Amino acid sequence: MDTAAALARLDAYYQAMPPVAAMHLRISHYDGQRLRLHAPLARHVNDKGCAFGGSLGSLMTLAAWGLVSMRLEAADLRSDVYVADSRIRYLAPLYADLEAEAALSPEADWDEFIATLRSRGRARTHLDAWVRLLEGDAAAEFRGRFVAFGKG
Amino acid sequence: MDTAAALARLDAYYQAMPPVAAMHLRISHYDGQRLRLHAPLARHVNDKGCAFGGSLGSLMTLAAWGLVSMRLEAADLRSDVYVADSRIRYLAPLYADLEAEAALSPEADWDEFIATLRSRGRARTHLDAWVRLLEGDAAAEFRGRFVAFGKG
Repeated sequence: MDTAAALARLDAYYQAMPPVAAMHLRISHYDGQRLRLHAPLARHVNDKGCAFGGSLGSLMTLAAWGLVSMRLEAADLRSDVYVADSRIRYLAPLYADLEAEAALSPEADWDEFIATLRSRGRARTHLDAWVRLLEGDAAAEFRGRFVAFGKG
Repeated sequence: MDTAAALARLDAYYQAMPPVAAMHLRISHYDGQRLRLHAPLARHVNDKGCAFGGSLGSLMTLAAWGLVSMRLEAADLRSDVYVADSRIRYLAPLYADLEAEAALSPEADWDEFIATLRSRGRARTHLDAWVRLLEGDAAAEFRGRFVAFGKG
């Protein structure tokens, strides 16, 4: 896979969704295991001067969704990816730009997910995501279940 | 309480937050027990032509947060309200405008919440929210824990 081209396609995907374009996000890191998204605080500030919880939730969801999409593209699978459920814990107010990072949950396995999608045409897996404070502690944590359906 | 004036203040609160103003939401119903928010699908559409999960999550969070705020204002309490954690289930794709409704969770109690906030200066409670399909089934369900801190 041409990773740069795949990231450009993912970014185009994000920007084509009106609610996502409004977030002014950009992909800031991808190494095959983790995907990180950045969004400016000014665009996501709430009534208390810190990051709006809904924005944190959306950015973590999008980071996790994007990581699943990148891994499926790397496996040469065309599929639709949906978030099925999520849990979010808001731990501390964030007074800085938002940086959401996603990774596969420790008990999940990419090979198994991809093999199931190939054989059954659908598969599910779990991802974790988080937003950190500048000091390194978590501002918010996310765990989500994602479902992929093969296309064609 | 002048409910119309309180709803106008809540709306002004929403619109003062950049990420919320970008959602183009409006308060569509409030009766003391339930608060409902409306947002146009065109603003919240994803890559599949249905409502973006992050938007559903944000709108349900905002409906629940708004209901807590209205109840605290009705009790003449000045306080900051935060979402502490949430669970969201995405059940079916929504191809219509978003209408999120929030209510206190069945096991929670407004009187107890408000009495605790008065006596201890902080209190927490649970709210449910949901977005329905036009046919009436749920497109998404939310349960969140909210914390209020008394001010001054």
